[in-house]
Amino acid sequence: LPEARQRTAVPGVATGLAVTGAGGDVLHVEASLADPETGATGVTLTGQLGDVMKESAQIALSFLRSRGAELELPVGSLKDRSVHIHVPAGAVPKDGPSAGVTMTTALASLLSGRPVRADVAMTGEVSLTGRVLPIGGVKQKLLAAHRAGITTVLIPARNEPDLDDVPAEVLADLTVHAVSDVREVLDLALTPATVARQAVA
Amino acid sequence: LPEARQRTAVPGVATGLAVTGAGGDVLHVEASLADPETGATGVTLTGQLGDVMKESAQIALSFLRSRGAELELPVGSLKDRSVHIHVPAGAVPKDGPSAGVTMTTALASLLSGRPVRADVAMTGEVSLTGRVLPIGGVKQKLLAAHRAGITTVLIPARNEPDLDDVPAEVLADLTVHAVSDVREVLDLALTPATVARQAVA
Amino acid sequence: LPEARQRTAVPGVATGLAVTGAGGDVLHVEASLADPETGATGVTLTGQLGDVMKESAQIALSFLRSRGAELELPVGSLKDRSVHIHVPAGAVPKDGPSAGVTMTTALASLLSGRPVRADVAMTGEVSLTGRVLPIGGVKQKLLAAHRAGITTVLIPARNEPDLDDVPAEVLADLTVHAVSDVREVLDLALTPATVARQAVA
Amino acid sequence: LPEARQRTAVPGVATGLAVTGAGGDVLHVEASLADPETGATGVTLTGQLGDVMKESAQIALSFLRSRGAELELPVGSLKDRSVHIHVPAGAVPKDGPSAGVTMTTALASLLSGRPVRADVAMTGEVSLTGRVLPIGGVKQKLLAAHRAGITTVLIPARNEPDLDDVPAEVLADLTVHAVSDVREVLDLALTPATVARQAVA
Amino acid sequence: LPEARQRTAVPGVATGLAVTGAGGDVLHVEASLADPETGATGVTLTGQLGDVMKESAQIALSFLRSRGAELELPVGSLKDRSVHIHVPAGAVPKDGPSAGVTMTTALASLLSGRPVRADVAMTGEVSLTGRVLPIGGVKQKLLAAHRAGITTVLIPARNEPDLDDVPAEVLADLTVHAVSDVREVLDLALTPATVARQAVA
Amino acid sequence: LPEARQRTAVPGVATGLAVTGAGGDVLHVEASLADPETGATGVTLTGQLGDVMKESAQIALSFLRSRGAELELPVGSLKDRSVHIHVPAGAVPKDGPSAGVTMTTALASLLSGRPVRADVAMTGEVSLTGRVLPIGGVKQKLLAAHRAGITTVLIPARNEPDLDDVPAEVLADLTVHAVSDVREVLDLALTPATVARQAVA
Ligand SMILES: [Ca+2]
Ligand SMILES: [Ca+2]
Ligand SMILES: [Ca+2]
Ligand SMILES: [Ca+2]
Ligand SMILES: [Ca+2]
Ligand SMILES: [Ca+2]
Ligand SMILES: [Ca+2]
Ligand SMILES: [Ca+2]
Ligand SMILES: [Ca+2]
Ligand SMILES: [Ca+2]
Ligand SMILES: [Ca+2]
Ligand SMILES: [Ca+2]
Repeated sequence: LPEARQRTAVPGVATGLAVTGAGGDVLHVEASLADPETGATGVTLTGQLGDVMKESAQIALSFLRSRGAELELPVGSLKDRSVHIHVPAGAVPKDGPSAGVTMTTALASLLSGRPVRADVAMTGEVSLTGRVLPIGGVKQKLLAAHRAGITTVLIPARNEPDLDDVPAEVLADLTVHAVSDVREVLDLALTPATVARQAVA
Repeated sequence: LPEARQRTAVPGVATGLAVTGAGGDVLHVEASLADPETGATGVTLTGQLGDVMKESAQIALSFLRSRGAELELPVGSLKDRSVHIHVPAGAVPKDGPSAGVTMTTALASLLSGRPVRADVAMTGEVSLTGRVLPIGGVKQKLLAAHRAGITTVLIPARNEPDLDDVPAEVLADLTVHAVSDVREVLDLALTPATVARQAVA
Repeated sequence: LPEARQRTAVPGVATGLAVTGAGGDVLHVEASLADPETGATGVTLTGQLGDVMKESAQIALSFLRSRGAELELPVGSLKDRSVHIHVPAGAVPKDGPSAGVTMTTALASLLSGRPVRADVAMTGEVSLTGRVLPIGGVKQKLLAAHRAGITTVLIPARNEPDLDDVPAEVLADLTVHAVSDVREVLDLALTPATVARQAVA
Repeated sequence: LPEARQRTAVPGVATGLAVTGAGGDVLHVEASLADPETGATGVTLTGQLGDVMKESAQIALSFLRSRGAELELPVGSLKDRSVHIHVPAGAVPKDGPSAGVTMTTALASLLSGRPVRADVAMTGEVSLTGRVLPIGGVKQKLLAAHRAGITTVLIPARNEPDLDDVPAEVLADLTVHAVSDVREVLDLALTPATVARQAVA
Repeated sequence: LPEARQRTAVPGVATGLAVTGAGGDVLHVEASLADPETGATGVTLTGQLGDVMKESAQIALSFLRSRGAELELPVGSLKDRSVHIHVPAGAVPKDGPSAGVTMTTALASLLSGRPVRADVAMTGEVSLTGRVLPIGGVKQKLLAAHRAGITTVLIPARNEPDLDDVPAEVLADLTVHAVSDVREVLDLALTPATVARQAVA
Repeated sequence: LPEARQRTAVPGVATGLAVTGAGGDVLHVEASLADPETGATGVTLTGQLGDVMKESAQIALSFLRSRGAELELPVGSLKDRSVHIHVPAGAVPKDGPSAGVTMTTALASLLSGRPVRADVAMTGEVSLTGRVLPIGGVKQKLLAAHRAGITTVLIPARNEPDLDDVPAEVLADLTVHAVSDVREVLDLALTPATVARQAVA
């Protein structure tokens, strides 16, 4: 698990799952907040994101802006500080709504200072109220997670029937959680608050 | 009615009706306001909305900005807070003016803290003065509402003749209100103020 | 006259005349100002307006911003409040300069609190100094006004010769005013100030 | 001369000359400044202007913003007030640099409160330092001015040779000034300051 | 030399050299700063400039914003005042990086109040640190300068070998300086400070 | 090494490596900050950069805005000052993510006042957390660096296998560092702080 472990070692990075032309793949969503001293404001989205994926980032951000305080996240940290969400690799076009949970998790990790668990990957569209909506490519995504050494995968509850298509030997190596609200994702994916090393606030 | 009930459990979500290539369908309009602490401003519209549907959102917002105080809505809550209107599913393109009443209702629900009734779905264009203008696809929309377990449907008064085309057994299961002003929609669709759990203001 | 009467019952709505593929038609220009409490600013134009028609709206607004005080309109009401001009139906593309007088009248009605007379319809391009310039389709527009139960029509003075083409029996039912300045339009179309129910200022 | 006289009766309107598909034509450039009470700011350009003509308007404005005080124009009037330049007719596309002198004159008239002489028409590109650069279509433009009853025409000095192509009987009716600096245009075209009825400042 | 002499008589105008479809040509870069009283801000670029040439203007401006104080230019004059760079003729499309030195010189002239020498023309790309980079068309540009009566030409040091292609009789009439830093350009092209008539600051 | 030495003599310039149609090439990334007196703000990117390369610049900037203080860079210098990143030559289109390390280094050099070592060139994509990701064209890039007299080259750790393809005689002349974090790049490429001549802060 060295790659995901290095990537998620700092708060603000979450591991997602995507479908590409060549099957499934693991991707990392990175989020950062500008130092207030820099005076930078606004939202920047990079990684050659398509229209739907850019909207996913806006939804993740609005969810936390409106509901984050209920989740005990220091949402005041978002004020007067530029937010940047990036999805490497920089030259590879990406689209679709299924990174919604991953973007929300990366941002919540950043705000809380709690790194995301390195053994967890996730996929799912998020609505503005935090509901997790179904996505495609469950089989390819779980195969990709398995290849990458991931041991826990979060999928939308409405995608549970798709697990039938995943080889038993792969499922045997994975703990799969079927979730219907992004708050469940955050509970499962963020390391405990007591372990958190540094909050951004 | 589990899906609509979960979706509309919080203020800011209203159930609409759309015509798709495959007949009618139920859709949910979600609205959120950023926590004032976040400093976020502006209007964000997501859900792959077409030009006409984006204009519907602007009309709904302007109607409430100009007439909301008459309706005893705390319109000052709109000041210095980012408004986001989203229509899942995130990757499905949507267009047309008929979500006007649904968008107005979602926003009024959000402002008032009164959730929308889970058994109500609606369709209708809204003008800037709040008039409800006729739309297309009444038959498909009522069939879709019926399939989804909706029991009350609001349609534009000028679409009343289109009810002739709806099967009698479907109409027998539905309470249909033909309305000419969006204020009637709000009266019919929002749960009573005394039941409201939390206002955003 | 029920439709136009309902539409123009509140200040901010004026009845215009357009030429469509299927002859002439009546349209309503609606204007609103955001409640100052909402903090909304800027100008919003909706109704699938083409470039020329959007420019007409900007001209109407600039005319009132520069000349409105001379007309005893409370132009300070425009400060720090979002202005929205909408022309239903929302999904029908519209273009051309001939709604200039109608837009100016809707805005002046809104500012003065004087509703527009329900029996009056109008057509004419407006220049930045308030001159009324000629337009096309006079015959179709008057026929449409007549069909809609309108009894007074305002047209540009330079279009007076086009009245020759309008059937005598239609003209017999209409009072037609040929105007060369938008100030004449406002005098003829707005209900007397003493009748005005509520000013926006 | 009734048309041009009515058009230029107020400060802020200047008569230009254009070449169209059907020969030359007279056009009027109108300028307005928003009442400071309206809080409107920014620059609006209307009349279906092409890219080059929009740049001409920006050059005219920058010339007055940088050199206007030397010309004893109250340039502080431009502060915090929206400027609008419009060229009717609203639906007719227009382009080219030759309205530069006309735009500069309309703005200087507006700022000074001195109406433009109704018997004067003009054509010429303006540079950022106020130099008048040559344009095309001198013959057609002078014929159009003559047809419209204009008696004084201002052209760029470098277009003087093109007067050879204008019929002698037309030239006999016109006073033509060949100018190389837009300051000469202002001296010739604006009515004397003592006659000015109202300044905008 | 009458044309260049008139053009460069005021600070803020520099003479450049371009390659057109019909050989080389002389062009003038004009720069202006809005009177602080006008409240105008921002940067305006006109003259139908292509993308590369617009970037050259941004580089010239950034070079002076970051290095201007070292050159004893009153860069505070750039604060809260609109900058406009124009390259006549207004309707002629222009592109390429070779006007970088000319734009930098026009702006430095404007800031310093030192007019550019009327007998000097220049060509060269400028980098953000002020280095002068090579350009094309040296032969055509020097022929054009010669035809226009220019006697001193500044070219990039790395273009010195291209002088081999220029006819000896043309070179005999020209003083050519090969420069590698835009600071050399400013030293050679601006009239001495003691001669300066008026600074903008 | 004269070219790179002149280019990197001032803080804010770093030497990168690119692949072009004609093999590899050396490029210089230049960064500048506007003098606070000029009041200029915002970010400007020039050099005909493609979408991916513009995103690289935004990532470099966000990395420093969020992590720069940990690196003891005076990130407050970024506040209220326009940042400009330029990559000559101005007319040559450039794209791709591999200039990420070079852009980060140029900006860090500018902020720290420490010039970049003239004998160092680099290539590598940077993520928002500072990880150095693999790029293409290692062989051509090292050949280009060698031709240009560069003696130290920094490449992504994950590109180490590509060194097999580089001729031994070229590798013999080069010190190649394979790095996985942009902080290593900064340590290797910036001249020691004690040598720094002037900080921008
Ligand atoms: Ca997807
Ligand atoms: Ca299945
Ligand atoms: Ca529809
Ligand atoms: Ca029927
Ligand atoms: Ca029309
Ligand atoms: Ca006739
Ligand atoms: Ca022209
Ligand atoms: Ca001739
Ligand atoms: Ca060039
Ligand atoms: Ca040679
Ligand atoms: Ca690359
Ligand atoms: Ca290898």
